[in-house]
Amino acid sequence: MVQGLDTRAISIYSPILAELSLVEDRLHDLANTSIPELEPLLEHALSHGGKRVRPALTLLSASIFPTDTDNPIKMATGVELLHLATLIHDDTVDDADTRRGQASVSGRWGKEVAVLLGDYLFATSATLVCDTGNLRVVRRFAETIVELASGELIEYFNTFNPQQELERYYDRIYRKTASLFRTASETGAVLSAAGEEQVQALSSYGYNIGMAFQVVDDLLDILGDESELGKPVGNDLKQGVLTLPTIMLMEQFPGSNPIPLLFEEPEDDCKLEQALDMIRNSSIIPDCFAVIREYCDQAILALVGLPKVESRDSLESMAAYVRERSR
Amino acid sequence: MVQGLDTRAISIYSPILAELSLVEDRLHDLANTSIPELEPLLEHALSHGGKRVRPALTLLSASIFPTDTDNPIKMATGVELLHLATLIHDDTVDDADTRRGQASVSGRWGKEVAVLLGDYLFATSATLVCDTGNLRVVRRFAETIVELASGELIEYFNTFNPQQELERYYDRIYRKTASLFRTASETGAVLSAAGEEQVQALSSYGYNIGMAFQVVDDLLDILGDESELGKPVGNDLKQGVLTLPTIMLMEQFPGSNPIPLLFEEPEDDCKLEQALDMIRNSSIIPDCFAVIREYCDQAILALVGLPKVESRDSLESMAAYVRERSR
Repeated sequence: MVQGLDTRAISIYSPILAELSLVEDRLHDLANTSIPELEPLLEHALSHGGKRVRPALTLLSASIFPTDTDNPIKMATGVELLHLATLIHDDTVDDADTRRGQASVSGRWGKEVAVLLGDYLFATSATLVCDTGNLRVVRRFAETIVELASGELIEYFNTFNPQQELERYYDRIYRKTASLFRTASETGAVLSAAGEEQVQALSSYGYNIGMAFQVVDDLLDILGDESELGKPVGNDLKQGVLTLPTIMLMEQFPGSNPIPLLFEEPEDDCKLEQALDMIRNSSIIPDCFAVIREYCDQAILALVGLPKVESRDSLESMAAYVRERSR
Repeated sequence: MVQGLDTRAISIYSPILAELSLVEDRLHDLANTSIPELEPLLEHALSHGGKRVRPALTLLSASIFPTDTDNPIKMATGVELLHLATLIHDDTVDDADTRRGQASVSGRWGKEVAVLLGDYLFATSATLVCDTGNLRVVRRFAETIVELASGELIEYFNTFNPQQELERYYDRIYRKTASLFRTASETGAVLSAAGEEQVQALSSYGYNIGMAFQVVDDLLDILGDESELGKPVGNDLKQGVLTLPTIMLMEQFPGSNPIPLLFEEPEDDCKLEQALDMIRNSSIIPDCFAVIREYCDQAILALVGLPKVESRDSLESMAAYVRERSR
């Protein structure tokens, strides 16, 4: 059984809960290696209690069509494992000692181990995807890792740079977030009996829902309370990372907002509060909600023309759920 | 033209120098991306002046048989790129600010960039291998990354552990070095018209030459002069890493050698000198040479039965060259 899913997630995942549980089992089985040194690390890394959204996308997309479920399960496991590997390297790069209230791999065993364990999991995820025997999904998977790494590099090189164009922001969040969502749903379709047009529809669904998720994440950083986030409000800005609301602030008040000064003195919490207040008192939050709703609409529209089965309804409900909360 | 090859290497590589030059071109072309931030990093990472042994193995193995050369060139480029990616992560883990007299990526741009750039290159190497369209070599490639990362993890968890069995040592150096050599030659054969028995022969050749290379490396750490190595003599031991000669010292003088004490006080250069002297004054160095010769013999024997063409002679010469110098 997948731990940590709320009622809404269970209802959305209901057509594939059995398969998702098998994905969970396979993730846990990966901790049994012939290398005793690795066991505690793998158990720690694989017990991360996420919502398993990405593997659910793969399984839901595949199950819209007639399919042998074993390949989508392998793919879904690979997709989630890749996600876990990226979290380990991200925490290493960001110097984050905790993740979801638990010690991060980097915090507990040091950066050296985190670098190597991340590599190990990246490569293991690729072997799972190879097990599908489908070269198209393997290639897409490798491209996704290229996109993930380049997205993180672009973000890193632009920290504390107050001048960032919206277009480059959207490219960056595609790379760091939406690429893997796209791959999750697209490969599920490729591994089923879907036709090419249907594969493209699910690719578009994944892209759009992934973009929406990242903008939600950006907004939570401004609006959320610390207990829910596990990190302080305004953390992105404090770390020098511009997100959609903060780029909008730079665009709407180019000559009179505190971000350029804050980026010169990142410890100045007063400037941080000023920036957050300006965002909250402007049209920026509704504007960001509008962007999220637009991505959700595009995701829902991508599903038109797909077979009207329960799994398709689930994908629609997922987008509708994000949309509803964005107003 | 491949820079930095000595006369002997040029003579051994002669059947595939044209192809190796194309590999070089493709590596340089990878620095042209659509992401301006990445260009200086890629140029730095890809201009590493190594001997290109691994891609040469792929090209020589493939050219023993009738083959379309484009796939082996893609594979050879992927193999070398994977090697460069591992060097970047290794330098990050080992805190090494230089490599071959140049600043390492980690030394010049910091560990954060080195982690992400290594990921980017790992994934890019995998996309090159996917371009061969051959799932068998893609799978072998992914397994190799798993082996490389696990080898490094095993080494890391056993630093400053004076009790290590020879069997585990051989497993570790297979993972961290010989696995990629094996993959280099094996995949060259898979991508040509070689039959399965011939693929296995070249796999065995690569394994054995890779094991020999690592033991040579271990010995150079004890014997070499600093100007050739670019790092101090006895560096492995100082870093807490047991190698073949130092494991032999532990085995031959279990109760009376300075390694356990050195591992308790790694800064004690006097203990380090004592350990190195004991190795030099024992039968250990000739014993290690015998191990290298045995691996070289096995590599040469693996070639028996393969077509008697120039590329096969090159592989034989490479093993014979390492063997000759090991006495």
